Amino acid sequence: MQQLTIVKVGGKIVEDLESLATFLKNFALLAGDKILVHGGGTSATLLAEKLGIKTKMTEGRRITDAEMLKVATMVYAGLVNKNIVAQLQKIGIDAVGLTGADMNLILSDKRPVKEIDYGFVGDIRDVNVPVLSELLGQNYLPVIAPITHDGNGNLLNTNADTIASEVAKALAFNFNIRLIYCFEKKGVLMNEADEESLIPNLDFELFQQYKSEGIIQGGMIPKLDNAFRAIASGVKEVIITRASDVNMGKGTFIR
Amino acid sequence: MQQLTIVKVGGKIVEDLESLATFLKNFALLAGDKILVHGGGTSATLLAEKLGIKTKMTEGRRITDAEMLKVATMVYAGLVNKNIVAQLQKIGIDAVGLTGADMNLILSDKRPVKEIDYGFVGDIRDVNVPVLSELLGQNYLPVIAPITHDGNGNLLNTNADTIASEVAKALAFNFNIRLIYCFEKKGVLMNEADEESLIPNLDFELFQQYKSEGIIQGGMIPKLDNAFRAIASGVKEVIITRASDVNMGKGTFIR
Repeated sequence: MQQLTIVKVGGKIVEDLESLATFLKNFALLAGDKILVHGGGTSATLLAEKLGIKTKMTEGRRITDAEMLKVATMVYAGLVNKNIVAQLQKIGIDAVGLTGADMNLILSDKRPVKEIDYGFVGDIRDVNVPVLSELLGQNYLPVIAPITHDGNGNLLNTNADTIASEVAKALAFNFNIRLIYCFEKKGVLMNEADEESLIPNLDFELFQQYKSEGIIQGGMIPKLDNAFRAIASGVKEVIITRASDVNMGKGTFIR
Repeated sequence: MQQLTIVKVGGKIVEDLESLATFLKNFALLAGDKILVHGGGTSATLLAEKLGIKTKMTEGRRITDAEMLKVATMVYAGLVNKNIVAQLQKIGIDAVGLTGADMNLILSDKRPVKEIDYGFVGDIRDVNVPVLSELLGQNYLPVIAPITHDGNGNLLNTNADTIASEVAKALAFNFNIRLIYCFEKKGVLMNEADEESLIPNLDFELFQQYKSEGIIQGGMIPKLDNAFRAIASGVKEVIITRASDVNMGKGTFIR
């Protein structure tokens, strides 16, 4: 099977033009087919603030009301996505920026209201494997913004980590997939204050142990949940690493 | 040769969800291959105002400073483009929203500074005919936002009327093209205050006469300049009509 690397990169890296350029230079060095999934939360929060829209968060998840959905669509699908695409074109990579609505790429359902009403947030129902395979076959690099649609005319805000793992899972039947989550640190750390305390390898058992011991906590838990779900669905390898190390084979390896 | 209809629709129609839905229902009734080019200036001006960014206009053209380019990218490529795509998907049309940067679709040059510095405004250098032909062949409906790129990492604001006519001209070698400009009125009018004074047919000679007599003036002149340039480059027909009449064969016909 063909190799495919799916990289998720967080807002902080892609929202600054200088760190974006550095990141993309390293990203371009990764061999073979690639898909890039990006965030953009910091800019969204900033724009919402300027517009007097309050950002509500619950357990690290954004509550998306109608106004916040507009902000997310503008920032993720517009500003951030198109700047990434233009920068990739500059270095000779034929990128195409997409939301889940474009080419019916990712269909989602508005999250049902239980204890929390997340608002216009989408839980992924279906990833369009033929379309993504076709784009890769035509040598396009899909750049996916964290906005999906419900097929009924509604755009929905969708967590970028989840998009990356759902796309990886859906394509795992057709490709040998490596999924790389980039963020600010070297990888998963034993001690968040100590960059040298990297956990080089993590399996499900060790993850459960570190979680129960409180070593792994906070926003890293949903990220690793996504990672292990991807592995369970046939993704070969998940790597959690620093954005600047994206092509270095460093970080925490999950198999 | 295959028939292709290229429709340009202005901001006022696509920025309101209700008028957008009505327009798209009629647009969908147009037979054969289609490309949609849209504006979004009203929302851009509104967002700029809310953010305290002043909108500068000269001869109906927006002056685009760095902050206004961000606003344009957010509104055109994000909010407006993705809402159109989601609404088209809802009615079963497999749309893909694109800027000039995506798939290297439209390459432009930053307009040289002469008497006026237009800022980050792009004059179109090249339209990617193979990519557009391929998308149409795969039954995608391209929805083009008025943002292009210079191939050097910069996004550029580009007039949507001009994008429509340049795309039409570039594709005129491969398709029988009808170019439809939608706006608020029935077509080109003898008297702007009288909706019944429609000019049903217009050729270049008559256009020059009406222009010199002051009958045709203002924003209609660059629109018609674009139209006649398209005709001169092999586009079969240009129609200027009301958005709600897009599929009705009404309006001003230019040949």
